[in-house]
Amino acid sequence: MTLPAHQAQHVTPPHALIDRLGQRLGPAGLLTQEADIAPFAIDWRRLFPGRPACVVRPASTAEVADVVRLCREAGAALVPQGGNTGLAGGAVPDGSGSQVVLSLARMAAIRGVDPVGLTLTAEAGCVLKVAQDAAEAAGRLLPVSFAAEGSALVGGVVATNAGGINVVRYGMTRGLVLGLEVVLADGSVVDGLRALRKDNAGYDWKQLFIGTEGTLGIVTAAVLRLVARPRHSATALLAVPDPAAALRLFTLAQEEIGDSIQAFELISGTSLGLVEKHAGLKSPVGQAGWTVLIEAASSLSGLREAMEGVLGTALEREDALDGVLAESGRQAADLWALREHVTECEAREGKSVKHDVSVPITAIPDFLDEAGRVLAAGAPGTRVNAFGHMGDGNIHYNVLIGPDHASEAINALVHGVVDRYGGSISAEHGIGQYRVAELARHRHPDEMALARRIKAALDPEGLLNPGKVLARG
Amino acid sequence: MTLPAHQAQHVTPPHALIDRLGQRLGPAGLLTQEADIAPFAIDWRRLFPGRPACVVRPASTAEVADVVRLCREAGAALVPQGGNTGLAGGAVPDGSGSQVVLSLARMAAIRGVDPVGLTLTAEAGCVLKVAQDAAEAAGRLLPVSFAAEGSALVGGVVATNAGGINVVRYGMTRGLVLGLEVVLADGSVVDGLRALRKDNAGYDWKQLFIGTEGTLGIVTAAVLRLVARPRHSATALLAVPDPAAALRLFTLAQEEIGDSIQAFELISGTSLGLVEKHAGLKSPVGQAGWTVLIEAASSLSGLREAMEGVLGTALEREDALDGVLAESGRQAADLWALREHVTECEAREGKSVKHDVSVPITAIPDFLDEAGRVLAAGAPGTRVNAFGHMGDGNIHYNVLIGPDHASEAINALVHGVVDRYGGSISAEHGIGQYRVAELARHRHPDEMALARRIKAALDPEGLLNPGKVLARG
Repeated sequence: MTLPAHQAQHVTPPHALIDRLGQRLGPAGLLTQEADIAPFAIDWRRLFPGRPACVVRPASTAEVADVVRLCREAGAALVPQGGNTGLAGGAVPDGSGSQVVLSLARMAAIRGVDPVGLTLTAEAGCVLKVAQDAAEAAGRLLPVSFAAEGSALVGGVVATNAGGINVVRYGMTRGLVLGLEVVLADGSVVDGLRALRKDNAGYDWKQLFIGTEGTLGIVTAAVLRLVARPRHSATALLAVPDPAAALRLFTLAQEEIGDSIQAFELISGTSLGLVEKHAGLKSPVGQAGWTVLIEAASSLSGLREAMEGVLGTALEREDALDGVLAESGRQAADLWALREHVTECEAREGKSVKHDVSVPITAIPDFLDEAGRVLAAGAPGTRVNAFGHMGDGNIHYNVLIGPDHASEAINALVHGVVDRYGGSISAEHGIGQYRVAELARHRHPDEMALARRIKAALDPEGLLNPGKVLARG
Repeated sequence: MTLPAHQAQHVTPPHALIDRLGQRLGPAGLLTQEADIAPFAIDWRRLFPGRPACVVRPASTAEVADVVRLCREAGAALVPQGGNTGLAGGAVPDGSGSQVVLSLARMAAIRGVDPVGLTLTAEAGCVLKVAQDAAEAAGRLLPVSFAAEGSALVGGVVATNAGGINVVRYGMTRGLVLGLEVVLADGSVVDGLRALRKDNAGYDWKQLFIGTEGTLGIVTAAVLRLVARPRHSATALLAVPDPAAALRLFTLAQEEIGDSIQAFELISGTSLGLVEKHAGLKSPVGQAGWTVLIEAASSLSGLREAMEGVLGTALEREDALDGVLAESGRQAADLWALREHVTECEAREGKSVKHDVSVPITAIPDFLDEAGRVLAAGAPGTRVNAFGHMGDGNIHYNVLIGPDHASEAINALVHGVVDRYGGSISAEHGIGQYRVAELARHRHPDEMALARRIKAALDPEGLLNPGKVLARG
């Protein structure tokens, strides 16, 4: 296989490597044409453009292993890519033209669903929604869910430790991974696809590949935990006077409904204003300072009664000014639409600087207060569009800016407040290439040194997704 | 500080080290007298006797760090010890007389309880029960619970990734650890005591210290996740014809009660026979082939009704032959007593070979059947005492033996069946020194190589709990 002349000039790795990859993978497994590789070269938000040497699309774990070995022999770096739905540029190559993008999309099989043992085994290229549907067809629930679930692939979900809407109940993806199959930097395959709920036999090495964004190895398949589908759900929207009241409401809901709560979302008045302006959707509880969306689900009767109790008590205590409880699935979807349109309406409003931060749940009111004051003083003219998963301590603290505002300065202001509350500068989106320098500034040097030691042990030549999460050695 | 003459002879590390440790820690921080160190030299079951050079009892993280540095300079190995309640000999020294036991017991403070943010921060030496009580005093639940909770220390609970009775609902300890403070092999302290439910900023390095039994670093403090206390509970005991019926009952309970189930225990007829014989406790549902204990808890009304529904349906389908639902906390405790007395009554019956195995939940009936046949053929005269956490796939498959039976041969028979079902030879008890050789036989060499690579990266001199989990390099 040879390259067209117009491409050859910006391909750094030897043609010999591309020839060998083509021989091993066949025509369906190798893309070299500009038009074919373009979708893999940039993230979906088009913020992180790169230039791959080529794109490989192996169809089996053995092919992935051979790709890793061939690239290693050639000294070429590999960038694993799933559905390319990440928000931190973790799955796209740099601009050197020398990195090989490894798409897992052709490894899309669901290897098995066990509705009795409550597990699902899928290859890395399986679309999350397809896996969710397979669980549902078996009468079970795969409880990881987020906006990009129709495009995100299981391997990427694992490699980024995806969060989403149900973390308050089911935790991050890490807690749902029972087994992994991984290809290491030397091309060896480690098969830990055990469908066990409990396994304390030796080091739980799979933890190293969850949330490390393909920098330590390539996830090729996973065993995920399923749960029983709750029969009933209850969704409520409440207008609250301020975040402190929302926090009291969180405690009340925990006490009355417990871990049947599967979402506890906080939405600012600014956010709802944007949704009304750009999507024409109006909150049924009015334009409050803040709004809380609670969803709970259980197979026990008494769920709706408990949610009504929460509403009644919150209104009585004046922690809620108004509230509605959805009477149907349709109404629940309408309430969710308010929350789900925030990001899109923010984009229609103009430019913004996004922050995906977390702080201890108890600190959320003080954090919001202090961050607001810091921005008002340090970046006058900006507007805060804050919303997010309050039940996890995760606030998407986005700042609408004008042409004169510098996003890095705003990052520094917001993340400085996050530091003061012992928070995280990336609650769920990961680091990718976007926040590499910031991570190094915000985490203690001892933590960064430990991370580098792990990287050096597992990828001594630095060929797996170099420059992501950690700066190049 | 000098040693009495009768001890000096079996202390290999230089007196200079012990002198320096004494200077740094003071008299309360160093034990050298035979009588003082004896309780630290052997595990509570008295199966793994060792001989420490001395016992250090640091009172702060800084003291732990200095102990690690001093020992490293002297080339002395350290054996971290919590409550010394482990079942695999992971916390006791070898017989060389050269290892320093590092007891965390003096670092016992609870640094904080946050009932709103649902976290508790405790030092490694805090007794688990004390932490549970602190959570309860704040109206919350620390959901890790097991027989030794009155002696086990938080550091050991984390370092062994303890399981216990509520894993089916709340998972292993790993899922409850939000933050850790750790002393590394070079004496540096890494502080990751963040009280965050969600944190995807960089490598989640704390995972390396959970369940690795002190071989990669020393846990000095932890932030643990709390949950709301469920208001209602329901406990039922059912006689079932066989494990296949128990499995159908598990699915029924999942569908009707969902993740409000917090224990689903399977107890063999042999187990109940031992409890009747040695403790005089009789099952209210008769001497069935197998018995299932289900406990569920929720703040929602409808829990008892759902449990009654499960009983009714199971009886109707003949998956249960008889069943009772506890009418009071006292009755629930009586039902639990049947389960809790199994281990003690097994010991009174005579010698046994214990197995702490897990298999995919769906495979439990076939596993029990096959293991029974393999033992009948390969070790005639043995009796199987099987019981355990069926909802986690975890069976304590203990084998009562006579004087002529060899425990290693019985291990090999049982673990061979475990392998055929894709199971684990240690579901919750860990590897310690007890199963080091077996682990190496049952896990794939690629997995063992990966574990060794991690060990070499974090403890290159092999001074942290050498010979535990992994054989000495």
